[in-house]
Amino acid sequence: MSEKKKRYFLPEEEIPRQWYNIQADMPNKPLPPLNPATREPLKAEDLYPIFAEELCRQELNQTDRWIDIPEEVREMYKYYRSTPLVRAYGLEKALGTPAHIYFKNESVSPMGSHKLNSALAQAYYCRKEGVTNVTTETGAGQWGASLAYAAKLFGLEAAVYQVKLSYEQKPYRRSMMQTFGAQVTPSPSMSTRAGKDILTANPNHQGSLGTAISEAIELARTTPGCKYTLGSVLSHVTLHQTVIGLEAEKQMAMAGEYPDVVVACFGGGSNFGGIAFPFLRHNILDGKTTRFVAAEPASCPKLTRGKFCYDFGDEAGYTPLLPMFSLGHNFMPPNVHAGGLRYHGAGVIVSQLLKDGLMEAVDIKQIESFDAGVLFARAEGIIPAPESCHAIAATIREAEKCKATGEEKVILFNLSGHGLIDMASYDKYLSGDLVNYSISDEQIDKNLSALK
Amino acid sequence: MSEKKKRYFLPEEEIPRQWYNIQADMPNKPLPPLNPATREPLKAEDLYPIFAEELCRQELNQTDRWIDIPEEVREMYKYYRSTPLVRAYGLEKALGTPAHIYFKNESVSPMGSHKLNSALAQAYYCRKEGVTNVTTETGAGQWGASLAYAAKLFGLEAAVYQVKLSYEQKPYRRSMMQTFGAQVTPSPSMSTRAGKDILTANPNHQGSLGTAISEAIELARTTPGCKYTLGSVLSHVTLHQTVIGLEAEKQMAMAGEYPDVVVACFGGGSNFGGIAFPFLRHNILDGKTTRFVAAEPASCPKLTRGKFCYDFGDEAGYTPLLPMFSLGHNFMPPNVHAGGLRYHGAGVIVSQLLKDGLMEAVDIKQIESFDAGVLFARAEGIIPAPESCHAIAATIREAEKCKATGEEKVILFNLSGHGLIDMASYDKYLSGDLVNYSISDEQIDKNLSALK
Repeated sequence: MSEKKKRYFLPEEEIPRQWYNIQADMPNKPLPPLNPATREPLKAEDLYPIFAEELCRQELNQTDRWIDIPEEVREMYKYYRSTPLVRAYGLEKALGTPAHIYFKNESVSPMGSHKLNSALAQAYYCRKEGVTNVTTETGAGQWGASLAYAAKLFGLEAAVYQVKLSYEQKPYRRSMMQTFGAQVTPSPSMSTRAGKDILTANPNHQGSLGTAISEAIELARTTPGCKYTLGSVLSHVTLHQTVIGLEAEKQMAMAGEYPDVVVACFGGGSNFGGIAFPFLRHNILDGKTTRFVAAEPASCPKLTRGKFCYDFGDEAGYTPLLPMFSLGHNFMPPNVHAGGLRYHGAGVIVSQLLKDGLMEAVDIKQIESFDAGVLFARAEGIIPAPESCHAIAATIREAEKCKATGEEKVILFNLSGHGLIDMASYDKYLSGDLVNYSISDEQIDKNLSALK
Repeated sequence: MSEKKKRYFLPEEEIPRQWYNIQADMPNKPLPPLNPATREPLKAEDLYPIFAEELCRQELNQTDRWIDIPEEVREMYKYYRSTPLVRAYGLEKALGTPAHIYFKNESVSPMGSHKLNSALAQAYYCRKEGVTNVTTETGAGQWGASLAYAAKLFGLEAAVYQVKLSYEQKPYRRSMMQTFGAQVTPSPSMSTRAGKDILTANPNHQGSLGTAISEAIELARTTPGCKYTLGSVLSHVTLHQTVIGLEAEKQMAMAGEYPDVVVACFGGGSNFGGIAFPFLRHNILDGKTTRFVAAEPASCPKLTRGKFCYDFGDEAGYTPLLPMFSLGHNFMPPNVHAGGLRYHGAGVIVSQLLKDGLMEAVDIKQIESFDAGVLFARAEGIIPAPESCHAIAATIREAEKCKATGEEKVILFNLSGHGLIDMASYDKYLSGDLVNYSISDEQIDKNLSALK
């Protein structure tokens, strides 16, 4: 057997020192968020009551291509970064494809996913600005666990609203958050006005990211010394995630290759943007022709079937109006196991890029996602998170095309997290109890037409 | 903030090419295993009906210091090795100790523990020798999951007997094994004579590693083309685990340090021997004075309170008689969450080393182990397996001694696995429901005096 190189690491000194801000390079900048009352474009200061100020400035920064990573954050990155770039020989063999498949393994972060990359940054800025408490929402719990740990690290108290469905489906992630000392509340809850309103209208509401965001924002607004943090969607979150793609760019060079296709699953867009944007800049600036594929669940198809419009980021309408692809902020996604993808909208940057044809989107049904996840697990030994299964399914589609045409394309996907805490969903899949959900056009139209 | 180096990796070409066989260097070799019927010393051939032949030869090899790692196994090691050596700055700070604490992070293996190191080797040799089916026991499920994956990789069918208590406490590990295509049976079961006998005598038997081993051996003996594999205790398993210590030796040199104390948790001895033996060879051969500390649960104290004697490795008495520290093969350990440490005996090599004063042992109560695990999680961001919590607790004891004396000792421990699938035990700890178990001298004496 020949010695094939499987994993590529960067030396510690090559861990990125700056994040990449694609807003500086976009041919069409994202439209501005609007104040819902006045419909005036938002300024950074308008967001200061909710987020740490530096994060507000990052959010709306359309000029600086590179943003320095604070040394204290980079020191913490060193505990798990660089994450390995892995050549998926096992998957290639299982598929019989001539494609070269690589994945960036973000599942080796101690929290099991990419979410820590932004949690560390957000907790750091909050601490630096004198904040004492942070609050957030979480779906599957990957983000909540990461924020809980980052908060503990920087000496902040953390309160997490976890989507009720995930709170019940994935009790171990709640335990993780509690192990790090966070308060965890299933959402919708009776502890906020937003939660009460939702439960009054629908006592059996299972929660969604949109409802949990409303509750967390309300807590931040009404609690002195408390700021809100978010795990995806917003531009500053995606900014922090670009460490993934910046590392991958150097690691692909170590492997002597450059991706023809980059794939990631899509909830709000942060892991997708994180791996895609550093490569996409070479399409914009250097004439590269890489394709970028976002894989969303067919049950929550904002990119493939949503509408580009101004909409709220949360159920209760607490956020600014954001220019994005959306299914409507009252869209209630079916109970798929990929809790991190159950969100009605897409971040403003990805929305603009999709509108401009600089990226693509595909939708994946739940069973296809687990078919892909189990195939990957048996071939590569890593059980992927249900969210990541969508990226694997889209990668397999690309690899099958290569098999049909004989092309040796280079495919890179982001393994955003492992599924060790999601084994109940694998149980369901293996026992044949998993279902596909379909969303009718009427449902989508009705929900979108309800937008003010 | 200064740039402190946190993690050390080896380049792929420096992943060990040989395992270290300490039997060749021991001042007193282990006594031979005996045939229970004749009480004659066992030859490798006597074990051929149960294990792959190469593994039988490795088991009894007392002459070759280095054993080549097959290229096919080393190729698979590359998917997750080298594992990082990490300087635990966070833990040092939390303790306020002058000690330098390092840990070898085996939890980043895709199966979440060190067990894959031997599973890959055992599955490889079985396949090479024409075996079609493998069977084994598993406690917490770390070993079973690793064997299930390794079997899938080398094209073998796998049947796993999981200790009933763990099967119920840790359903996600069962799901992992099933995801890799293995058959999983809670033990004791009605599918073997050994299981039936145990259940007849005690219908509420919760299982132990000793009972599950009996069932697996019986299945191997009665099934054509099937061999038994074991996750710890035996000398060939510990041999495979020496990749841990061999890597750590090089990585400590990269950090410019050498350990004064090496710590690991102790179930059968394979993760302990894996990290300890490569360093212990320098005590034996080169006059180093490193201390080696095995951390066992106070509820299953074979090293600290057991007796050195010839005893069976399993409940039913199917194995050879092994010269080991034991609590008696019918010892039923209390239901601690560290399922991987619930075993009545210690491997023959460690038993001899302990007898000869070349290593030490400490016992850790369950609550102290979780105190240590939670402290570590909050300081280092990694939630450790309940088994590994014992190593952390023993490390903290050593670090506290350094704090008292002001000594800057270098402590290295093995983080044998993560606890992400053991969160139910953290829940219990956090809610104050966890208890300590104590074992009376009378219990131990009674059990040992029952030995033939």
